[in-house]
Amino acid sequence: MNEKILSELTVSGEGKIVFLILDGLGGLPYGERRETELEAAQTPNLNALAKDSICGLLDPLGPGLTPGSGPAHLALFGYDPFQYNVGRGLLSAAGVDYPLDPEDLYARVNFATLDGEGLVTDRRAGRLDTEENRRLAEVLTARVSLPGGIGFRLVTEKEHRALLVLSGKGLSPELAETDPQKTGVFPLAPRALIPEAQKTAGILTEMLGQVRTILAEEKRGNMILLRGYAKHHPFPGFRERYRLSALAISLYPMYRGIARLLGMEVLGEVSTLEEEFAALAANFEGYDFFFLHVKTPDARGEDGDYAGKVKAIEEVDRFIPEVRALNPRVLVVTGDHSTPAALKGHSWHPVPALLYSPACLPDDVSSFGERPCLKGGLGILPMKDLMALALAHAGRLAKFGA
Amino acid sequence: MNEKILSELTVSGEGKIVFLILDGLGGLPYGERRETELEAAQTPNLNALAKDSICGLLDPLGPGLTPGSGPAHLALFGYDPFQYNVGRGLLSAAGVDYPLDPEDLYARVNFATLDGEGLVTDRRAGRLDTEENRRLAEVLTARVSLPGGIGFRLVTEKEHRALLVLSGKGLSPELAETDPQKTGVFPLAPRALIPEAQKTAGILTEMLGQVRTILAEEKRGNMILLRGYAKHHPFPGFRERYRLSALAISLYPMYRGIARLLGMEVLGEVSTLEEEFAALAANFEGYDFFFLHVKTPDARGEDGDYAGKVKAIEEVDRFIPEVRALNPRVLVVTGDHSTPAALKGHSWHPVPALLYSPACLPDDVSSFGERPCLKGGLGILPMKDLMALALAHAGRLAKFGA
Repeated sequence: MNEKILSELTVSGEGKIVFLILDGLGGLPYGERRETELEAAQTPNLNALAKDSICGLLDPLGPGLTPGSGPAHLALFGYDPFQYNVGRGLLSAAGVDYPLDPEDLYARVNFATLDGEGLVTDRRAGRLDTEENRRLAEVLTARVSLPGGIGFRLVTEKEHRALLVLSGKGLSPELAETDPQKTGVFPLAPRALIPEAQKTAGILTEMLGQVRTILAEEKRGNMILLRGYAKHHPFPGFRERYRLSALAISLYPMYRGIARLLGMEVLGEVSTLEEEFAALAANFEGYDFFFLHVKTPDARGEDGDYAGKVKAIEEVDRFIPEVRALNPRVLVVTGDHSTPAALKGHSWHPVPALLYSPACLPDDVSSFGERPCLKGGLGILPMKDLMALALAHAGRLAKFGA
Repeated sequence: MNEKILSELTVSGEGKIVFLILDGLGGLPYGERRETELEAAQTPNLNALAKDSICGLLDPLGPGLTPGSGPAHLALFGYDPFQYNVGRGLLSAAGVDYPLDPEDLYARVNFATLDGEGLVTDRRAGRLDTEENRRLAEVLTARVSLPGGIGFRLVTEKEHRALLVLSGKGLSPELAETDPQKTGVFPLAPRALIPEAQKTAGILTEMLGQVRTILAEEKRGNMILLRGYAKHHPFPGFRERYRLSALAISLYPMYRGIARLLGMEVLGEVSTLEEEFAALAANFEGYDFFFLHVKTPDARGEDGDYAGKVKAIEEVDRFIPEVRALNPRVLVVTGDHSTPAALKGHSWHPVPALLYSPACLPDDVSSFGERPCLKGGLGILPMKDLMALALAHAGRLAKFGA
């Protein structure tokens, strides 16, 4: 489907839409267990909701492709995940709530350790602790001084990870990464990939020389490695594209960052699942669209903790009645991708999904799980197409053609 | 699928194809009823046919998109509904059986009422009766006189609706609509949207001034509002594209008009459902392809009349045995889109479909309805792909590649 046509058909309306996203929801059998995590979980409220809903599986990027969190969420929100692929540096910037500026150049930084000859001995500087990271970042931000009025800032993320921000006119992200991805070799040069990036390459070369000098006496973390250069190309946001005022509720900065990239307002002050759902209810009158993000199924999946992921899903089930009581016109429950405990990481498997609406045609699915959903009325749907269905069921899409 | 490849593979043959189109067939549960209209209908003959057929759901435009009648029928007949989007003015022209000319500019007209200052007080002139419409259209056609040899004609449709035809060289449809879509404001100017349309905009401005003067003394309908400007870009028709001679049988001019746009012959003299089916039998030897259009399910759906739509479907069921007795190589029964009584209008929901042919692989569907069809062998199929399946089952498509 053409995204431009969709946007042109969007009309204002009253119907509210809730996307309840269980990160990494999709799963697999594990050891002796034949059920997936969702199938094994006791979810009476989700099952009852599934009975009144149209169900199916969402394919995030197409058969066999495993998405990162960025592309997966873009697809959920109806953005072509290939066209709008977000550079890692930009996700880092969004993730630390850095105020984005289209002039800035962002990059993902690892503190690393070099030996006396300048060869990389540890690409993560022994997973430097976050406080050490903060000290080094402050020293560098204070002392690096670049020519031509280019601003330099290093922002701590966690452990060995940081965000580089260069600010100034005419910076280009078309540069080679300096992380060699292995040890015993020199860091790579920040070579220009296109002629227009030569000035930026020169600035980065100068910068890396200063960093090397300033950090020379550090035992761990005496250098930085760069990758994922990115600039912020502002997206057509939810309001512009869908005429929706949107609120994002998440405990994690990265998801708040993605939401902010799409023009959602972001609720910062929540710190528990209870508070997330309470915030949904408290803000329900104020917005058209709600993105409520639950991190724990993905985290337990990444840990390889099948029972933990089952429990994380069951914890969400308890809140379903209070979401239904808000009476949204559309309630979607799904994930951004699968994170099977059996694989300890993101995977390509399509994600179970349900869409409840008074205007939906309920199918025969009466239990929310991967295999029941396979028989649902949505079939196996490209994840990017979910948003159009949500808008349609909310009464927010005009007819196409006479 | 590539339409060009399909056309190149088409071969002549003997197998006849019947498309029995129940307009607005797809439905939804209604109030206490869990069944859709089709599921609730007593359709022993359609159920028996489904048993011998391959079944599924057709998605007219893609997830969430609700089609107008034009795009929906284009998709049914294998034409990309976005590429071949037909302007409303052209549908009006086809709908009143106006002889189409690629030089003509068509527009959809509303008679409207303005107050003494020229503000719109009624966009439909109190739903003017058709005879009044005819009188005004004749007066205007006789008296409006445009410069540069441009011909003017106003053709009555029904109530407040009419068709404007301007004829002459170099007319452009790239103009702003003059219908302001609300009352208490002036009609809009027919502004050129591209530089090449400035001459046409000038002609329309002159024309609207004359119309205002000629109708000045009318109490209701003292002005016309324009929208849906369109020219006729001749389509590659059924014969050229599919090597099919096609006959359209419909009680309604608009559907006959769409069929004529696609190069079908059109039967004009039918006025009841019985006559439509009798005409199919009477003309069965003379054509390869038959489009038999039944309007009532859509009309009852638009009325919000669930029981009436059920009955309309049941009335069609009676005729199935006599269609089967004609022994077509392919018999398709489906709709152009859904019109659930619960929504009182067209909707985005996929439409149940069956394709009967001696060459089909019957699935396990033994009852014709939305949810049974979900388990059918066609799956959820883009509506545009139906035509290729019909051609294949009729023995009218060659092998691709060696």
